[in-house]
Amino acid sequence: MQGIYYDFYGNLLTEHQRKIYEDVALHDMSLGEIAQEMGISRQAVFDLVKRCDKLLQSYEDKLKLVQKFKNTSDLAAQIGVLARRCREENNIELTRKIEELAALIPEME
Amino acid sequence: MQGIYYDFYGNLLTEHQRKIYEDVALHDMSLGEIAQEMGISRQAVFDLVKRCDKLLQSYEDKLKLVQKFKNTSDLAAQIGVLARRCREENNIELTRKIEELAALIPEME
Repeated sequence: MQGIYYDFYGNLLTEHQRKIYEDVALHDMSLGEIAQEMGISRQAVFDLVKRCDKLLQSYEDKLKLVQKFKNTSDLAAQIGVLARRCREENNIELTRKIEELAALIPEME
Repeated sequence: MQGIYYDFYGNLLTEHQRKIYEDVALHDMSLGEIAQEMGISRQAVFDLVKRCDKLLQSYEDKLKLVQKFKNTSDLAAQIGVLARRCREENNIELTRKIEELAALIPEME
């Protein structure tokens, strides 16, 4: 189960795949429950979820956008901490480090 | 031509599509040149590029990751400007605004 990959790439799955994947991943339903509800075998539900995991992983392998976002998100967290320290320690020089970190976040035209 | 969509989603195209799309978009070759090089008609090149544009647009319509990145990138640019102003105006209170902006960049576990 890769929640973050689903958040990023879930909309590339079919509606049917999304419905079942969400039942398993978000609504925490058992494979048996979903199988009954959808009128398919428990094995079919299992296979579909595995297949979706593989698909989502392959999108990340190709696009690496989750990784890109994680890097940016880490930088933002560091900036937040520095901004607070800057005030608390009354050390305005820390703004240089903030500027450096902000510059590491990719620009987009 | 949507360079930024290609940067984000280009790896979801086939190698053949990428080759031709890049020749047109990045290497600025004419449709005629590419047609000759690839041994296909000028019309086929034109259709392929149009189709790729549509595909890339449909990925963004579904995933909106370019939009998400643009928002984050704008926030980073504002943070950079504020950090510099903070020093130049010796106004440490601007770090509160920096902290606010950094908190708007989505966290990822």
